[in-house]
Amino acid sequence: MQLGMIGLGRMGANMARRLTRGDHQCVVYDLHPDAVKAAVHPGAVGASSLQDLVSQLKAPRVLWLMLPAAVVDENLALLVPLLEAGDIVIDGGNSYYHDDIRRGAELKAKQIHYVDVGTSGGVAGFDRGYCLMIGGETETVQHLAPIFKTLAPGADAATPTSGRNKSGSSAEQGYLHCGPQGAGHFVKMVHNGIEYGIMGAYAEGLNILRHANVGKQKSVADAETTPLRHPEHYQYDLDLPEITELWRRGSVIGSWLLDLTAGALLKDPTLENYAGHVSDSGEGRWTINAAVDEAVPVPILSAALFSRFSSRGEDEFSNKVLSAMRQGFGGHVEKPAKPD
Amino acid sequence: MQLGMIGLGRMGANMARRLTRGDHQCVVYDLHPDAVKAAVHPGAVGASSLQDLVSQLKAPRVLWLMLPAAVVDENLALLVPLLEAGDIVIDGGNSYYHDDIRRGAELKAKQIHYVDVGTSGGVAGFDRGYCLMIGGETETVQHLAPIFKTLAPGADAATPTSGRNKSGSSAEQGYLHCGPQGAGHFVKMVHNGIEYGIMGAYAEGLNILRHANVGKQKSVADAETTPLRHPEHYQYDLDLPEITELWRRGSVIGSWLLDLTAGALLKDPTLENYAGHVSDSGEGRWTINAAVDEAVPVPILSAALFSRFSSRGEDEFSNKVLSAMRQGFGGHVEKPAKPD
Amino acid sequence: MQLGMIGLGRMGANMARRLTRGDHQCVVYDLHPDAVKAAVHPGAVGASSLQDLVSQLKAPRVLWLMLPAAVVDENLALLVPLLEAGDIVIDGGNSYYHDDIRRGAELKAKQIHYVDVGTSGGVAGFDRGYCLMIGGETETVQHLAPIFKTLAPGADAATPTSGRNKSGSSAEQGYLHCGPQGAGHFVKMVHNGIEYGIMGAYAEGLNILRHANVGKQKSVADAETTPLRHPEHYQYDLDLPEITELWRRGSVIGSWLLDLTAGALLKDPTLENYAGHVSDSGEGRWTINAAVDEAVPVPILSAALFSRFSSRGEDEFSNKVLSAMRQGFGGHVEKPAKPD
Amino acid sequence: MQLGMIGLGRMGANMARRLTRGDHQCVVYDLHPDAVKAAVHPGAVGASSLQDLVSQLKAPRVLWLMLPAAVVDENLALLVPLLEAGDIVIDGGNSYYHDDIRRGAELKAKQIHYVDVGTSGGVAGFDRGYCLMIGGETETVQHLAPIFKTLAPGADAATPTSGRNKSGSSAEQGYLHCGPQGAGHFVKMVHNGIEYGIMGAYAEGLNILRHANVGKQKSVADAETTPLRHPEHYQYDLDLPEITELWRRGSVIGSWLLDLTAGALLKDPTLENYAGHVSDSGEGRWTINAAVDEAVPVPILSAALFSRFSSRGEDEFSNKVLSAMRQGFGGHVEKPAKPD
Repeated sequence: MQLGMIGLGRMGANMARRLTRGDHQCVVYDLHPDAVKAAVHPGAVGASSLQDLVSQLKAPRVLWLMLPAAVVDENLALLVPLLEAGDIVIDGGNSYYHDDIRRGAELKAKQIHYVDVGTSGGVAGFDRGYCLMIGGETETVQHLAPIFKTLAPGADAATPTSGRNKSGSSAEQGYLHCGPQGAGHFVKMVHNGIEYGIMGAYAEGLNILRHANVGKQKSVADAETTPLRHPEHYQYDLDLPEITELWRRGSVIGSWLLDLTAGALLKDPTLENYAGHVSDSGEGRWTINAAVDEAVPVPILSAALFSRFSSRGEDEFSNKVLSAMRQGFGGHVEKPAKPD
Repeated sequence: MQLGMIGLGRMGANMARRLTRGDHQCVVYDLHPDAVKAAVHPGAVGASSLQDLVSQLKAPRVLWLMLPAAVVDENLALLVPLLEAGDIVIDGGNSYYHDDIRRGAELKAKQIHYVDVGTSGGVAGFDRGYCLMIGGETETVQHLAPIFKTLAPGADAATPTSGRNKSGSSAEQGYLHCGPQGAGHFVKMVHNGIEYGIMGAYAEGLNILRHANVGKQKSVADAETTPLRHPEHYQYDLDLPEITELWRRGSVIGSWLLDLTAGALLKDPTLENYAGHVSDSGEGRWTINAAVDEAVPVPILSAALFSRFSSRGEDEFSNKVLSAMRQGFGGHVEKPAKPD
Repeated sequence: MQLGMIGLGRMGANMARRLTRGDHQCVVYDLHPDAVKAAVHPGAVGASSLQDLVSQLKAPRVLWLMLPAAVVDENLALLVPLLEAGDIVIDGGNSYYHDDIRRGAELKAKQIHYVDVGTSGGVAGFDRGYCLMIGGETETVQHLAPIFKTLAPGADAATPTSGRNKSGSSAEQGYLHCGPQGAGHFVKMVHNGIEYGIMGAYAEGLNILRHANVGKQKSVADAETTPLRHPEHYQYDLDLPEITELWRRGSVIGSWLLDLTAGALLKDPTLENYAGHVSDSGEGRWTINAAVDEAVPVPILSAALFSRFSSRGEDEFSNKVLSAMRQGFGGHVEKPAKPD
Repeated sequence: MQLGMIGLGRMGANMARRLTRGDHQCVVYDLHPDAVKAAVHPGAVGASSLQDLVSQLKAPRVLWLMLPAAVVDENLALLVPLLEAGDIVIDGGNSYYHDDIRRGAELKAKQIHYVDVGTSGGVAGFDRGYCLMIGGETETVQHLAPIFKTLAPGADAATPTSGRNKSGSSAEQGYLHCGPQGAGHFVKMVHNGIEYGIMGAYAEGLNILRHANVGKQKSVADAETTPLRHPEHYQYDLDLPEITELWRRGSVIGSWLLDLTAGALLKDPTLENYAGHVSDSGEGRWTINAAVDEAVPVPILSAALFSRFSSRGEDEFSNKVLSAMRQGFGGHVEKPAKPD
């Protein structure tokens, strides 16, 4: 099929390449001409503007937006007037599903089809394939199946699940029509919420391992410091690169995230090149909002999000309030922070 | 009664004064002669050593230790050989109740009575009185009742609870024999665990109020930053000193901790004189341990403790792991921390 | 002043009574005629309909809505057409502040003034007074000061905060103009979020105390049960009614919520008349949403909310997933739940 | 090598089989003669008693205990007197590492070598191999390498980590000498703590997906129920078996635990055969204790543990306290729990 790709960042450029490798034709566009230039390759021609992009595509057109969620609406405002009835717009980025529901209705009034695709795979997706969570009208999604099939990792990317009878479920290929508009990004949102939780679980556990030698440190005895009662229990200098490599084989907690962690620790066992200011890019927050609306308890997923906020110093005023209270009732004076 | 006070820090010195005001006689001792000198007053004579202290007390002696938990055992090791059968040793500090159980058994072998008293009240206790949670043998605790009664705030410190029939319950005076040795510090431990949770609840809420104007800030649109969808909902510049003062009257969340917070914010609305490195002094940790042993879920109390750890930078390695993972799967590069 | 009260439930009826006691005139209305009948008293006349209510008030009218948040908009739809320019509508319930912002703009177009008042005090408010958090235009709020002053607890409801110079701050009376429309309910929302956290802190701590005797129970030794390593540390049968009464005097965690808890435990030490299905009425949820929008970490406040969800069984599917996983990797078969 | 296996439950029997498949000789023993009978196979002979077991092994003997943590000490008490200097005892179960430290010292006095092995792999370990985290003296661990190598999954169990130079690190085979006695179980403890967190992250996320259709339910409007503001956002009936299958390919959250979850949901999409009472078997608890001792914040790992406690009803009294408080200040009466 022919597809126009709008947005040639980390994700979009690689996806176009995976599509042409699968014998689809791409027209690629980005606000930055350099990005367009870099993305042109056999099977993928560049476009100098949205108009140019649209003019190079045969109707009914397929346009895939791979943009930061914050700029999708402004791009749609420019793009949609150039389209005609029957064209298909896919948002493959990390939009909030509320926006999908709204956009789907807006575009339907113009007989343009809107499809939302939650895309997981990251920078490794070109090789590993992209896991695609899709929301939209059934007919449109079916029409796009060749695209999805090429982008997806394929059945061989995982061992078969016992009991599955080769029913031809597209989930077994790595893409799935999850429901009406918004369903794709809803499922992707929760996927990322889970991702935050899993990442945080590894991070906290590794932090415990890293401090397993606290019993070797000299301790202080004053009213502001809790003494370690059993220093003899914390005498281990553990090798985190080896331990994470170990866990990759046979353990219950093996995962791709662990593979990445083992790789990062191998390069830099103390991770001293990172400051530890952890961004969050929307889905983690919206996951909490959805849980709150649904009355579903999510203590783990929320803890993961809030740890990221705290990593960026957003707990500062809260901590100052605690110190002020402690001085108020106990006369406690703050001690300097412990260096890591 | 006559009582020897060991440890003349923030708490011990004031307690001696409250006792003499109630017509008890004190002999006061501290490792630091200056502290002894400062604590001498009509009704309270100083001691130059533990020997001197013990020699000035009539048998059966009553000795009250008001020391950091970390140094109680070494002080007992010096003190106990100076005592004789029938003497009473009270640990009024913040000892772990496991130690009380052990010490109680050790001293019993020498026919010395051990009483643990969890003491709440802080630096305001001289005026407000001390809330006393007591563990030990019934007879010994009853013998000490005059002491406890003087230290406690008295019935007038709170409005009567509807339905109480003036039974003479000592809880209505502000002291209580909670159970055998260790029970006093067990109850005090949980008291402090609760205190951490309550303090954290106020602190988090005030942090939300303080940032109620985030919609006024210019926002960034990139893949690392979640845009604020509705800046118009966050346009409030709230006056925290006034709001905390307000809540002191008639609201459901009125409390002494709120009183102190209102006072602190009045003096310094941004609390800029605090760094926000919040100590924890043992009971909060032991509370979590007890909950884990009992299989009692304590998501709030544990969150309060872990926030204190994080306030001191103890989450640093964990955060670095997250940043390393994010770079691994998404090519994400850290952004600088947001200044408060 | 003259005021029309709409909604005569637990809160509205008592507030009308407190207003007439303060020499204001009330016209009271409720959908249920019985409620109107019960609320009529010297100074407060009844109305048989919204029309009747409006006709009995002199312009510029003051109408106070004390209704469940879910029905405010439908009531406003009926009420507003009956009003005229210059009238004032106060929403004293627990509306979401987003609605206040919208309503304020809608009513402004009709030259009707909208004021949002977060009201804390509960069923005890008639006696103790109501803590009022107010949002709206400055002039309108000032006009209503006599009403607020009467409803508020007054300065004597709390001890003076050291350092306050009797500036005539209304916060010292128990009411405060917090900011423009929505600010009142924003502050009340966070107030309730804090309330959830404080309540949960007490609840978790009391649960630990209640199980301080687990060491007396016979334990099981199988692969599905963690044995209690030190039963000797959990031999305390603690008296919760006495302990909560004790903490009311002199302790750091004294509060009105504790007073209520001591009263409830006095009546029923095991609380066996409660099922423990804990409702949440909106503000707790919105507090989390605000924190997420502001990027403020709230691990405690969110834990408190999620515990309420779980108390109503909303964690059921999540728990089933865990059991299914455990069976998958470890062959673990569920054990029956432990009876309390 | 020759090895005696004590404990032929889910794990021990399979491990013996994997060892004999690798040309080691086993003598197998269990308290239950039926278990011994079932475990005998070519290469593995049965023993009728500990004495019989020991007598069938050549010195220096290697004994592997695969028992519930709660019964290891009593088994050691029977076994050790039968051993002689130079023999090796391996605890491959889930012992607390504190016990390893103690036992290591006790057995060293008898010149018996003690090795602790944290073993992950579950019921699938016979096929997949076991991930082995080992603590003990270097010489002893090296002596046992052939055993560990056979039990471990081997290098092919995971893709190579980029940058590893085939150094012959045993971690790349799936076993690792982590440090002195206790280090194996320490690392396994944290491994399981992480496992709890990861499992909980999936479980919470799936619970959100399952309730994505709450907007289709009829809602109630009263003061005890928070209305869903946007039912149109929660109209999705999501197919969890398909979604979990989907995520197995190409997504960031792929893992073995996800594979198992997809399998369980395929068999039973509503998991109605599970009650959702989730056991915890020690390591999750000890992980929290270690974190508390080290002052490492673990909001996620602790939330995972506490959710398990709550799943078994251990939050009941806490919830009753909340309901009692709500009735106290607001006159709120409990509503019946929402059926799932």
